[in-house]
Amino acid sequence: MSTSIQTDRTSLQAADAADPLSAFRDRFSLPEGVIYLDGNSLGPLPRGAAERAAEVINNEWGQGLIRSWNTSGWFELPSRLGDKLSKIIGGNDGETVVTDTTSLNLFKALASAVRIQQQDAPTKRVILTERDNFPTDIYIAEGISDFLNSVNAETNEHYEVRLIDENLPLEKALDDSVAVVALSHVNYRTGAMWDMDAVTAAAHQAGALIVWDLAHAAGAVPVDLNGANADYAVGCTYKYLNGGPGSPAFIWVNGRHQGRFWQPLTGWWSHAAPFAMSDSYTAANDVRRFLCGTQPITSMAMIECGLDVSLEADMDLVRVKSLALADLFIALVRERCGEFGLELVTPESHAERGSHVSFRHPEGYAIIQALIDRGVIGDYREPEVLRFGLTPLYLSYTDIWDAVEILRDILESKSWDAPAYRARHAVT
Amino acid sequence: MSTSIQTDRTSLQAADAADPLSAFRDRFSLPEGVIYLDGNSLGPLPRGAAERAAEVINNEWGQGLIRSWNTSGWFELPSRLGDKLSKIIGGNDGETVVTDTTSLNLFKALASAVRIQQQDAPTKRVILTERDNFPTDIYIAEGISDFLNSVNAETNEHYEVRLIDENLPLEKALDDSVAVVALSHVNYRTGAMWDMDAVTAAAHQAGALIVWDLAHAAGAVPVDLNGANADYAVGCTYKYLNGGPGSPAFIWVNGRHQGRFWQPLTGWWSHAAPFAMSDSYTAANDVRRFLCGTQPITSMAMIECGLDVSLEADMDLVRVKSLALADLFIALVRERCGEFGLELVTPESHAERGSHVSFRHPEGYAIIQALIDRGVIGDYREPEVLRFGLTPLYLSYTDIWDAVEILRDILESKSWDAPAYRARHAVT
Repeated sequence: MSTSIQTDRTSLQAADAADPLSAFRDRFSLPEGVIYLDGNSLGPLPRGAAERAAEVINNEWGQGLIRSWNTSGWFELPSRLGDKLSKIIGGNDGETVVTDTTSLNLFKALASAVRIQQQDAPTKRVILTERDNFPTDIYIAEGISDFLNSVNAETNEHYEVRLIDENLPLEKALDDSVAVVALSHVNYRTGAMWDMDAVTAAAHQAGALIVWDLAHAAGAVPVDLNGANADYAVGCTYKYLNGGPGSPAFIWVNGRHQGRFWQPLTGWWSHAAPFAMSDSYTAANDVRRFLCGTQPITSMAMIECGLDVSLEADMDLVRVKSLALADLFIALVRERCGEFGLELVTPESHAERGSHVSFRHPEGYAIIQALIDRGVIGDYREPEVLRFGLTPLYLSYTDIWDAVEILRDILESKSWDAPAYRARHAVT
Repeated sequence: MSTSIQTDRTSLQAADAADPLSAFRDRFSLPEGVIYLDGNSLGPLPRGAAERAAEVINNEWGQGLIRSWNTSGWFELPSRLGDKLSKIIGGNDGETVVTDTTSLNLFKALASAVRIQQQDAPTKRVILTERDNFPTDIYIAEGISDFLNSVNAETNEHYEVRLIDENLPLEKALDDSVAVVALSHVNYRTGAMWDMDAVTAAAHQAGALIVWDLAHAAGAVPVDLNGANADYAVGCTYKYLNGGPGSPAFIWVNGRHQGRFWQPLTGWWSHAAPFAMSDSYTAANDVRRFLCGTQPITSMAMIECGLDVSLEADMDLVRVKSLALADLFIALVRERCGEFGLELVTPESHAERGSHVSFRHPEGYAIIQALIDRGVIGDYREPEVLRFGLTPLYLSYTDIWDAVEILRDILESKSWDAPAYRARHAVT
């Protein structure tokens, strides 16, 4: 893929014709006239998902009623989908369940890690994450720390959330007080990617456990949790895995920790015998101990449609195309929009970035609204960041060309400079 | 409604013809040949719910994509549905959200109550619930207690879960060490109902806060949380509210506690400004602080179809018919099946029961399977309990007659005594 000034739309059409992943675009139902660069926020509708939902609603719920918990496999859905998802993130069967939300699964993973350290190394009371992490990851760590400290107000043995930032890089922050490190594999805003193998090894070297948030990584970049010897991972299914709006999230726990996995969200679905209706809690002896309550079956069932598409795609090919789309996007923005003040915030090194590309611009919010109005859907993240997801399963090289041409036109014409584009929505 | 031996099917047909709620049956899509006595476990499919889901999937997700968070009101769904649900349980606008699971919402409510007591009355460290409560309610209380005690192993100031049972009735159990009382308004197994007004007053008298689990009450019996001056309530939407399999649950918090509502599941959806992407947590100043993460939109949206049906029904009429159906059921079982050893475990007093009726029988499991095979769908709960939900919106008096006739036939013929009916399913 040439990304020099010689690139033109015709040569990109040739690249599309040679693209081994091009057939996957037909697996999705995408609106006419839209170039969708926000699959990192909400993946598009896989063909067949609406039919799957109709089957769940009309037949399994409507006709089968309560019987479908057994006859339609609802009971097994979290672990059956978990086993499929495990293949995408380098997990084994029985190590992953699909359930709840990413925030809640992060709570479970952090609580479990804290509990293990209470037993193995009780002086370790720091939850280490990064200031630039997705906010919920910081808030959940604060929630755990604050809750535990609330009963221990008199002592100095407090839990603490420590934030990695420019003044406190990972290697300085990771001392022997750290109980658990919680990082996003790919940063939600910048697209920067941690070296999972190296950081996991460093955490273990310091006696810490590690939780990887794969929200912007699962289905986007190759992930090998067991290869990295990680401890926990969580992530969402509605971004690169195309599970549908708000579809339940996942949690992976390394098999070696499962017997010690303990977390306070001890709902009945995590019980060894949920239908024995015992009056005391005994955790299930398998992956079900990561569960809590009853899951939303219709939203759950559609996840499988997205997972099945991802499972058919060769992740190495996905990665090669993701990097090529991003290289092209960066080069075209630089060449075609160079004078309009867009500052690349995504690392250019392939080893250090995920599958989205972000630029900073003081008028980023209005520019994104103007782009959406022209059918190029990206999104905006505070502060000043325009974010573009480059998803190989349904984007072409010519899509990137066309998107940059529209971006250039908006910047050149200043059409973004309108009250309608400055008005803030609830969800940005 | 006569429930004496003079009752026959013809007179029940007349009762059906006079039933002011009979038109509601057409609001549901029920399978042919089924008498559904398990709406207390999973309510049936409201007409229009499949169409609503198809709209969410094909148009809002498929066409609107990420824009639908704003343009289709996804962002407001938890509180908009919460306001509708509030009307059914005696809450005000802005006091209820639909989100997560009952187990998780119970965790939030208990954690908040514990936190308030830590500040107001720190020696109160008992979570009081009942041995016969739905198990998840006990497990979640244990989870909180265990988590808090884990950091405080050296001291004697431990949290404790205390269980009301025959040896420790409420009035003895409710001493001044109790921080919070957590009870199910209607018992999942027996159908017994607490007097919400009296028990709430007794809890407050003892300086405790109270959490009501309305899983088997919301939509089933009149509930007036503000009238009772309760503190918290949680419950599910997939039983009497007919929201669909595993549809998200609800949490209600009395307006007077909202400014102090604090719970450790501090995901970004509970933040004052979730899209400001701040690196520190500030709780929203309204009902959104009960939220945590992103909700499953398709399953959420269908809840509204069920809620709208319930909102149209006069709850006083629902209650009158529920009691009449149950009185009829109890009388017919007593008369028609008296010699087969079914023991009523539901209180006969109207003031003390909800909307389901349960019997105990040593072969309860097999009898329920035989009934299901004959199209009479009830369910089984350990130990030995046959449970029948009597839901006025789609059941008729003749349904009850026909169900009891089939039950009698099964008991008389002993057709339940077959290996196929004894084989245990994962979900009972």
